[in-house]
Amino acid sequence: MQDYPKHYCGVFGVFGHPNAAEISYYGLYALQHRGQESAGIVTCDGSEFYSHRAMGLVPQVFKGNSLSRLKGENAIGHTRYSTTGASHAVNAQPMIVDCNRGNIAIAHNGNLTNASELRDELEAGGNIFQTTVDSEIILHLLARPSASPDANPLLDAIRKIQGAYSLVMMTEKEMIGVRDPHGFRPLSLGKVDGKWVLSSETCAFDLIKAEFVRDVKPGEVVIIDKNGLRSIDAFPAQKRRAFCVFEYVYFARPDSKISGMEVYKSRIEMGRHLAREHKIDADMVVPVPDSGNYAALGYSLESGIPYHMAFVRNHYVGRSFLQPSQVTRSLNVRVKLNLVSGLVEGKKVIIVDDSIVRGTTSQSRIRTLKEAGAKEVHVLISCPPHKYSCVYGIDFPDRKKLLAATSSVEEIKNHLDADSVGYLSEEGMVESTGQPRDQFCMACYNGDYPVPYDPNVDKEIIERRKFEAVSFGDLIEKEKSQSKLI
Amino acid sequence: MQDYPKHYCGVFGVFGHPNAAEISYYGLYALQHRGQESAGIVTCDGSEFYSHRAMGLVPQVFKGNSLSRLKGENAIGHTRYSTTGASHAVNAQPMIVDCNRGNIAIAHNGNLTNASELRDELEAGGNIFQTTVDSEIILHLLARPSASPDANPLLDAIRKIQGAYSLVMMTEKEMIGVRDPHGFRPLSLGKVDGKWVLSSETCAFDLIKAEFVRDVKPGEVVIIDKNGLRSIDAFPAQKRRAFCVFEYVYFARPDSKISGMEVYKSRIEMGRHLAREHKIDADMVVPVPDSGNYAALGYSLESGIPYHMAFVRNHYVGRSFLQPSQVTRSLNVRVKLNLVSGLVEGKKVIIVDDSIVRGTTSQSRIRTLKEAGAKEVHVLISCPPHKYSCVYGIDFPDRKKLLAATSSVEEIKNHLDADSVGYLSEEGMVESTGQPRDQFCMACYNGDYPVPYDPNVDKEIIERRKFEAVSFGDLIEKEKSQSKLI
Amino acid sequence: MQDYPKHYCGVFGVFGHPNAAEISYYGLYALQHRGQESAGIVTCDGSEFYSHRAMGLVPQVFKGNSLSRLKGENAIGHTRYSTTGASHAVNAQPMIVDCNRGNIAIAHNGNLTNASELRDELEAGGNIFQTTVDSEIILHLLARPSASPDANPLLDAIRKIQGAYSLVMMTEKEMIGVRDPHGFRPLSLGKVDGKWVLSSETCAFDLIKAEFVRDVKPGEVVIIDKNGLRSIDAFPAQKRRAFCVFEYVYFARPDSKISGMEVYKSRIEMGRHLAREHKIDADMVVPVPDSGNYAALGYSLESGIPYHMAFVRNHYVGRSFLQPSQVTRSLNVRVKLNLVSGLVEGKKVIIVDDSIVRGTTSQSRIRTLKEAGAKEVHVLISCPPHKYSCVYGIDFPDRKKLLAATSSVEEIKNHLDADSVGYLSEEGMVESTGQPRDQFCMACYNGDYPVPYDPNVDKEIIERRKFEAVSFGDLIEKEKSQSKLI
Amino acid sequence: MQDYPKHYCGVFGVFGHPNAAEISYYGLYALQHRGQESAGIVTCDGSEFYSHRAMGLVPQVFKGNSLSRLKGENAIGHTRYSTTGASHAVNAQPMIVDCNRGNIAIAHNGNLTNASELRDELEAGGNIFQTTVDSEIILHLLARPSASPDANPLLDAIRKIQGAYSLVMMTEKEMIGVRDPHGFRPLSLGKVDGKWVLSSETCAFDLIKAEFVRDVKPGEVVIIDKNGLRSIDAFPAQKRRAFCVFEYVYFARPDSKISGMEVYKSRIEMGRHLAREHKIDADMVVPVPDSGNYAALGYSLESGIPYHMAFVRNHYVGRSFLQPSQVTRSLNVRVKLNLVSGLVEGKKVIIVDDSIVRGTTSQSRIRTLKEAGAKEVHVLISCPPHKYSCVYGIDFPDRKKLLAATSSVEEIKNHLDADSVGYLSEEGMVESTGQPRDQFCMACYNGDYPVPYDPNVDKEIIERRKFEAVSFGDLIEKEKSQSKLI
Repeated sequence: MQDYPKHYCGVFGVFGHPNAAEISYYGLYALQHRGQESAGIVTCDGSEFYSHRAMGLVPQVFKGNSLSRLKGENAIGHTRYSTTGASHAVNAQPMIVDCNRGNIAIAHNGNLTNASELRDELEAGGNIFQTTVDSEIILHLLARPSASPDANPLLDAIRKIQGAYSLVMMTEKEMIGVRDPHGFRPLSLGKVDGKWVLSSETCAFDLIKAEFVRDVKPGEVVIIDKNGLRSIDAFPAQKRRAFCVFEYVYFARPDSKISGMEVYKSRIEMGRHLAREHKIDADMVVPVPDSGNYAALGYSLESGIPYHMAFVRNHYVGRSFLQPSQVTRSLNVRVKLNLVSGLVEGKKVIIVDDSIVRGTTSQSRIRTLKEAGAKEVHVLISCPPHKYSCVYGIDFPDRKKLLAATSSVEEIKNHLDADSVGYLSEEGMVESTGQPRDQFCMACYNGDYPVPYDPNVDKEIIERRKFEAVSFGDLIEKEKSQSKLI
Repeated sequence: MQDYPKHYCGVFGVFGHPNAAEISYYGLYALQHRGQESAGIVTCDGSEFYSHRAMGLVPQVFKGNSLSRLKGENAIGHTRYSTTGASHAVNAQPMIVDCNRGNIAIAHNGNLTNASELRDELEAGGNIFQTTVDSEIILHLLARPSASPDANPLLDAIRKIQGAYSLVMMTEKEMIGVRDPHGFRPLSLGKVDGKWVLSSETCAFDLIKAEFVRDVKPGEVVIIDKNGLRSIDAFPAQKRRAFCVFEYVYFARPDSKISGMEVYKSRIEMGRHLAREHKIDADMVVPVPDSGNYAALGYSLESGIPYHMAFVRNHYVGRSFLQPSQVTRSLNVRVKLNLVSGLVEGKKVIIVDDSIVRGTTSQSRIRTLKEAGAKEVHVLISCPPHKYSCVYGIDFPDRKKLLAATSSVEEIKNHLDADSVGYLSEEGMVESTGQPRDQFCMACYNGDYPVPYDPNVDKEIIERRKFEAVSFGDLIEKEKSQSKLI
Repeated sequence: MQDYPKHYCGVFGVFGHPNAAEISYYGLYALQHRGQESAGIVTCDGSEFYSHRAMGLVPQVFKGNSLSRLKGENAIGHTRYSTTGASHAVNAQPMIVDCNRGNIAIAHNGNLTNASELRDELEAGGNIFQTTVDSEIILHLLARPSASPDANPLLDAIRKIQGAYSLVMMTEKEMIGVRDPHGFRPLSLGKVDGKWVLSSETCAFDLIKAEFVRDVKPGEVVIIDKNGLRSIDAFPAQKRRAFCVFEYVYFARPDSKISGMEVYKSRIEMGRHLAREHKIDADMVVPVPDSGNYAALGYSLESGIPYHMAFVRNHYVGRSFLQPSQVTRSLNVRVKLNLVSGLVEGKKVIIVDDSIVRGTTSQSRIRTLKEAGAKEVHVLISCPPHKYSCVYGIDFPDRKKLLAATSSVEEIKNHLDADSVGYLSEEGMVESTGQPRDQFCMACYNGDYPVPYDPNVDKEIIERRKFEAVSFGDLIEKEKSQSKLI
Repeated sequence: MQDYPKHYCGVFGVFGHPNAAEISYYGLYALQHRGQESAGIVTCDGSEFYSHRAMGLVPQVFKGNSLSRLKGENAIGHTRYSTTGASHAVNAQPMIVDCNRGNIAIAHNGNLTNASELRDELEAGGNIFQTTVDSEIILHLLARPSASPDANPLLDAIRKIQGAYSLVMMTEKEMIGVRDPHGFRPLSLGKVDGKWVLSSETCAFDLIKAEFVRDVKPGEVVIIDKNGLRSIDAFPAQKRRAFCVFEYVYFARPDSKISGMEVYKSRIEMGRHLAREHKIDADMVVPVPDSGNYAALGYSLESGIPYHMAFVRNHYVGRSFLQPSQVTRSLNVRVKLNLVSGLVEGKKVIIVDDSIVRGTTSQSRIRTLKEAGAKEVHVLISCPPHKYSCVYGIDFPDRKKLLAATSSVEEIKNHLDADSVGYLSEEGMVESTGQPRDQFCMACYNGDYPVPYDPNVDKEIIERRKFEAVSFGDLIEKEKSQSKLI
């Protein structure tokens, strides 16, 4: 049961707004790309909590009159994507508990690197676990009795967890936003109709016509109640910044803004850098939709080689990266993209994508292009090679399945049967974001993990158990009293 | 959130049988009368737990291929009825947790009288609660670290809880049956194909063709593992016996056997005693189906007055006693029974039922009979007047709503507009069961509660909260560090 | 596709009532025993028709706000049971069509004996069929252009169909009730709040507190519009009466009244006749619930042998007779009834039922009784042996599967391993109804079919097709024009 | 009930393939853009028909094991979009009937212009209608008895209907494809694994890896049976060609090929023509996704002005054009597209779309751009102004709601608050398709309707009824026999 899914999620919250549930619905809608497996909203009217959580896309989960039953002016919401095969309804978020600090609801984006240790410690202390999501650990920590009256259970809890986390929480009186001290995952602060909102990405603010105020800072805790917003720096001894650079490359929506930089623009820049780093004599540059759209355009703008959307996407399929089941993934490859064959016949083609993971998809794309008569196929990737897995919440496969972890660029080219393969340099990528290099986590490219983690705890080793299943019968034997075997 | 529903439930378990899930399905089916709100089965294959729990009747819950996914040779199951208006899916049982003693699943029938105290104590100690069912309290207690290596967490937990409980639990290696020391609720032990089964009632054994072995004794813990069954008396200092006499009168199925007595026979005897205690000159004796069926027949057999099923039941409605919603209940009164009017016209009629609770249903029945031309209507009840509410798991209304708590028999007669009203004496009722009087809880008749309870904790006062909702923001104020109000 | 299911159904209608949909819901609820496969209501607000039809029991079909969408003061409804394995949603009733006579909706109980001929004739004339229910034939007939301006398409249609039918129809202006000239199936007329209602059985009137006015007469057409009710005798040359006697024995609800006789009373009488015809030295008379309840009671009342409900029914299973699937039927036998074993041990037992069809169920019941220690088991049936199948709408199996069609009573006794088997005489049965013998169809007992039918058209021969599937290609060959084979 | 929805649909069929149902599923999947309201597949194993039809997208409709129940080697399928508010399940296609020519299933794309007349005529002749889709009319015609043995009911039926239709039909022995003599809607012929397939568009062939053979010709009937394919020209006197030019502009998928021309390429050409016709000094050209994607790219390629995807689409919303409900449509405008604001600030922007219908959406887009700081906003449309409604199956609003029907280009510019508005010329549009001008229907641009239609029959006038609702009661009055008013 200790299989901590490395989930990727969207979190949202609004405080004091008469349409809290509906605003959260639209907020989650805009964050749908961060989690398509389940969605949930919890509201509070100042005393009672109301919740609706289910498997499915946001519009599927909130059908009929489910929104109207979510009363109250405060709300937090969550969209969830789990990388584990088993996707249990019981794991749907936000999670709610009752404890000595009242009712608390939590929505969590990220991945704790010390989840197993904390769970072992909590279980050793007598705590019981009903789910396999990190949030339950945080709630246990929040509920622990304080050592002294001056202690702050919230700060104590946050200082205990390690890894990547952007949290939106709700008590009966407050909404709380927290971002880990490294700032792995985004979290932004906005205002709609004068009321505070929190969102994983700013694109949600656009949809609900909220004004963007600022990003929550790494290590910052914001507490919003009827008196306004209070901010505290939970980690005064500043930690190394480690924002996930792959949010710029792939994950965030192009219309979001992170650290003041529009994601769209940074992707165009990645394409321009690619063009400068990899000059190719070609007839057209073709994006792999939609992940390669902007970098391909940037390449075209910089190089002057015409841009062509030769792959046509079927809009009724979800983003394959987000589908947990392997079966569905293979289906998606087949149904998701179709080639406008006549366009590429006899042509030298550059295709641009954001990554090569296992290489199977790229391989099949190149084969399709060659079967349609493409004279040359060049593959360009808008970031460096992915050589290491992510332990902070992005579901890359294990190292041994990452093509670039074990193959040189030349070997990759041969494996894909491409005429050339080129990656964007680390420098090019970082420059495209407009941020200093030391702000980023680039562990998946260079193996430099900002927060240490137990390498033995891996997705493959989810069954490491500290505790043996008890035999109550054997324990009772000791008591001897009247025990007998029938 | 601290609304502890006084639930009435059925529990079942089987250990080491290749068809564990299917046997549990049929077992729960036979126990459907003990809970129609939700049902669930948890199985174990020796290491993994598999569960399926949902709102609805047993055949509705286990549709399609849900049973086939429940792997393993061990299984426990639960049917649940909640008296609270809100019937949450999250409260469906059996409940499963992971803790320092491994995975544990639990199915519970009964009502803890010290649930609020225990929950307060556990929350004060830092435990978090995700549901409002008693089982979660027991699981927290089971997971508490032991004070000494010789301690037995199972016995410690059981000795901590008070009130009525029949439990069926499952660890990765064992199935455990527990009955509270007073023996409020039934729990029986049987064998099917040589494998142990536990069931709230013996009627489940008949359906699955299991052999009845014996009742689990009050205060007994039975632990079944691959080596067989071990029994321990958890309460050597024997407590007063307090089996719920209303199980004989109404709740248990007539084809079940409790303490060696067939429930059917005891109900016939109640009718015979009624006939001896209340001689009436009448043309026919009519049961209120189905609760009055057997006592009415006993009355007819003893008195010679013809038995007539003048009320015809619509079989597509559930048992009204078990429907949580007041709206549905009023509907049921209207749609559940129809009178064969021609039968009673000009006749002196005795109607027999198992209880008068609020009196509204009886009133409308008598009115119906008189409108159809009945010359006289006499009401007989197969037990004494219900004057006190039950705190051990049966959903009687609060005292002030119990007609007999505030009215004399004469007043009840006038209130119902009956020609006479008669109750079975306590002696008659007890004699009909064939058991000694001191074995029973008869608190609902005489107010003698075998286990003390806090009279302030009532269904009406479910919001007594020990803990105020915390304001993390105010707590942080103390820290002062960099807190500022924007 | 020409598999005309011999369906058994309930029909209902109300005209001019502000709560037409809700009244129909309760009406259908009371008629649930006549069809558990699907249910539907069609309403009309004077111009538009609104419908809701689905598979399932009445309360399952009309969930949520489905009733509130059924606007208008006129409504007809239908509960349907189909004997064919395939139960298609497309066959759900009432059926609605648009034709040259406006919109017409129809609900039908019965079975047309000339359905195949009529369908062949209609198809030959160019009509297309989208379902396999008789109602579609009637609607085609209703829509046929009239030969003369004086013709009446309704009477023309009715005079064309043969067999058993009780119809409730609705046009934009009228509600129409029709009963076939033999009067096979019941249909009654009532008034609720001064508005006309039609129902298969009077028990529906009791539920909605409608007053019973009278039965619709065999061959009568009643047309209700805003001016009141008009009646016409569609078959002035009176036909032989042929009311289905099995409605008294089994099918109708005991609280219904047919031809002025309470069904309950006639079943008690059947038991009394049984007692006079079959005197047995026994300790108890036990009904097979619920079909044998009343006849067993009648036997007890007449003979003085105590009545005992030794079989306990699980109320959460439907009536096995009505479950279309063979799999479910075998399950039902196992889960539906449980024996109170202690009651029959060492006793001579009479069991009373309404019929022995295949004998398998009776056999297993007797075995159960003997295993529980019954000294003798005598089987009594409250009607004569079923030797012939029904072609007027009751789903008896084919003759060859009817035990009594091929075995003598002695053989049946041996087959069942009973100590004796006794049937009620035809005289006893008829006398119990209080009606003259010549009023009844008793074809299933004596093979005297009041309406002739093609013995080759049987449930087993549903594929007799007049029309070969066309080959449009071959037809086009004749045209020669430019046809060519690629 | 006579509301003939002007539906837009996709049709598909495969004959003689062992995976007929699965191939149809993928075929419909590729045609999803032609109808998102309902989907259905009917298969035939040579005698029996099997069907599954439901509301929803293709993957929603064919969940679970629904495909595996569709047996047989022949299959036809349908995706449906209805423009009427009420979207009834009963209207889901393909429709199946049984008639004197056997079972026939039909899938239909297009709109009959003489549907009302034909329905009136058929109803007058006694036919009944259970749905409001054109297909039912065609089936009635197919089932009409032939006047002479040499007649061909298929050709007779086809010659009777007028307007736009591409049909795929299935009998027990054949699959039939039909395209109306004007060739309004596409229909293509392919082969997969040597078996014939029919599809509205060639993109379905790509997905199932079928080889494209040729387009079905206007007026051609292809009949496929076990002997192969036969073709007949049903309209030897050739009619004016009238292929819907808007299929090239908007409706067809860009990866489909119509009349040998890739739709993608023709859209790029439209953009290039736009650039030649409307030279604008701008900083970027921005498509309205996805309808303006290709023309905008063509404009950029021709003009050298950078292409920018400044509007970001939320991929979890359907194509707004296809959503029947007005409520959802307004929602879609809000949630579907988000602007990358920083990109357009201070810039001169050209936006390219395929049409301006009501103008409301364009208006709000331009406002969004200006609010984000765009200095100038120029609007270009890749076809001429839509001034007339479509009566051949595309759901344009009525003329009075078409902005261009009542406003000059200058007025449109002012209405939209754009800096300029430009349309592609008719010549430019036609040239971009590579087809001769006389091949097209361009009625929506110039009002020249190739097939006459009754201008009084409009979406607004759906209640024109030839037939008054009958009063059977009044008709019966004439019969006088025994009629009386109670």
